[in-house]
Amino acid sequence: MRYGAIEAGGTKFVCAVGDEHGNVEERVSFPTSKPEETLQLVVDFFHDKQITALGVGAFGPVDVKENSPSYGTIGNTPKLQWTDYPLLKELESKLNVPVKLNTDVNAAALGEYMHGAAKHADSCLYITVGTGIGAGAIVNGKTLQGFSHPEMGHIVVRKSAHDAYPGNCPYHRDCLEGLAAGPAIEARWGEKAQKLYHQDEVWRLEAYYLAQAIMSYTLVLSPGKIIMGGGVMKKEGLHHMVQQELEQLMQDYVPLPENYLVPPGLQDNAGIVGALLLAKEAQAKGKEILS
Amino acid sequence: MRYGAIEAGGTKFVCAVGDEHGNVEERVSFPTSKPEETLQLVVDFFHDKQITALGVGAFGPVDVKENSPSYGTIGNTPKLQWTDYPLLKELESKLNVPVKLNTDVNAAALGEYMHGAAKHADSCLYITVGTGIGAGAIVNGKTLQGFSHPEMGHIVVRKSAHDAYPGNCPYHRDCLEGLAAGPAIEARWGEKAQKLYHQDEVWRLEAYYLAQAIMSYTLVLSPGKIIMGGGVMKKEGLHHMVQQELEQLMQDYVPLPENYLVPPGLQDNAGIVGALLLAKEAQAKGKEILS
Repeated sequence: MRYGAIEAGGTKFVCAVGDEHGNVEERVSFPTSKPEETLQLVVDFFHDKQITALGVGAFGPVDVKENSPSYGTIGNTPKLQWTDYPLLKELESKLNVPVKLNTDVNAAALGEYMHGAAKHADSCLYITVGTGIGAGAIVNGKTLQGFSHPEMGHIVVRKSAHDAYPGNCPYHRDCLEGLAAGPAIEARWGEKAQKLYHQDEVWRLEAYYLAQAIMSYTLVLSPGKIIMGGGVMKKEGLHHMVQQELEQLMQDYVPLPENYLVPPGLQDNAGIVGALLLAKEAQAKGKEILS
Repeated sequence: MRYGAIEAGGTKFVCAVGDEHGNVEERVSFPTSKPEETLQLVVDFFHDKQITALGVGAFGPVDVKENSPSYGTIGNTPKLQWTDYPLLKELESKLNVPVKLNTDVNAAALGEYMHGAAKHADSCLYITVGTGIGAGAIVNGKTLQGFSHPEMGHIVVRKSAHDAYPGNCPYHRDCLEGLAAGPAIEARWGEKAQKLYHQDEVWRLEAYYLAQAIMSYTLVLSPGKIIMGGGVMKKEGLHHMVQQELEQLMQDYVPLPENYLVPPGLQDNAGIVGALLLAKEAQAKGKEILS
């Protein structure tokens, strides 16, 4: 079956065509602009692709409750033109196929769970550390969802006594994202993360903050595998440093699975592969409604 | 249908007979002693009750994976005589009925989800604050489980600058349990929690620590309802103080559901009612195996 997939990010949109096994036939990407302009590019790409259904991994906040009247509508985002934009409904009406939508990180978690680094695990968590910090999880075989999607990037961490940087989260100042996302690293040390690779202290501190969050996620969810991706995680050796800090903090309280913290198995394709799987679910749902 | 239920606590065992609607016909309780002695009392209670199946909410750590060879076996516990005790297998062979087991807090979460304070919610978290701090959750309609059951009581919180007490968790010193469980309150202030009800500062600090943990649970799980029970939560007004601290910490980042933090709807029966529901699941499972 031929499915469509969109990774709808705050900076760029990736559109792709592929199958439910995670094979991607064709893909394009373009910068995220105004909603109408961006959707026009999406329609231009898909119009002759004969897709059966579409899956979307979207930036948030976004309503991911399928039985909600505002399912698939973007919430309060700093990208003001997108606030209240009914992304899913617009895609359904313009492309005339069933659409299923979740967050970008939940889609990535699903991709890694089915075809990537967590394909042999019962559950997993996917965290991206980049311009922001976000995470999604698969538990009991489904994407984790409560009254909303997770917002794990804003979890409480303890500040290092050696860290004078106050944090830059506009909501919580020194939550995880406020202390450990790319912009916080740049603001603290005066250079972009990629230019700091040789400075050990930068990465010790980064690992300390990330390990605290991983400890909390572990104590709440005990995911079988934690996949750490995003631009900041491209620093060589950082996964290992986080693992060491985590062991230090956990003090063997809960024995951790082997190879617990790993990079994405699908590299930068996790989100698109997850969106293809959402498309398959959308198609099944469409059939259910017809029957 | 007549079901058996056990709340197997570290201090006492509660045994009960009832139905899947949460009606309890009869119950007894006795102190937890050596495994063999305790099990004998369990058998004495149930032997003439003609139960169809049994559900157990057990103290932990305990293996809750149904497909594991050590399902229902107690792990490394400070109650050394119980370490490696195959609780579920012993109950099955002595009572000759199908048994299903989960943690005490997961059973309580299930009870509150089906018949208590969360019966109209899609998901919930149950946290008990007493001699220790533990929590269980229902997500996607099931008890939350990963490579193990949650150990949420040991989550990272930030210490108050006004708190000189170092914490008493033998593993992590100043995790949530190390700073906010009953014994930490007593060690910090020199009196048991019940004797400190008039001292506002005690409860401001307690609410500060609990609210940080609730914030992290919310950002990870976004449960539809959070039920806070246990001895420490009997302090009048504490739920409200935690709610206020939580709003302060969250800064409206995620709009919270109405009546988010509540006391148990089933009072001290949440665990037993949950265990009756586990018994019903055990019976269904037994039928499946026979068919």
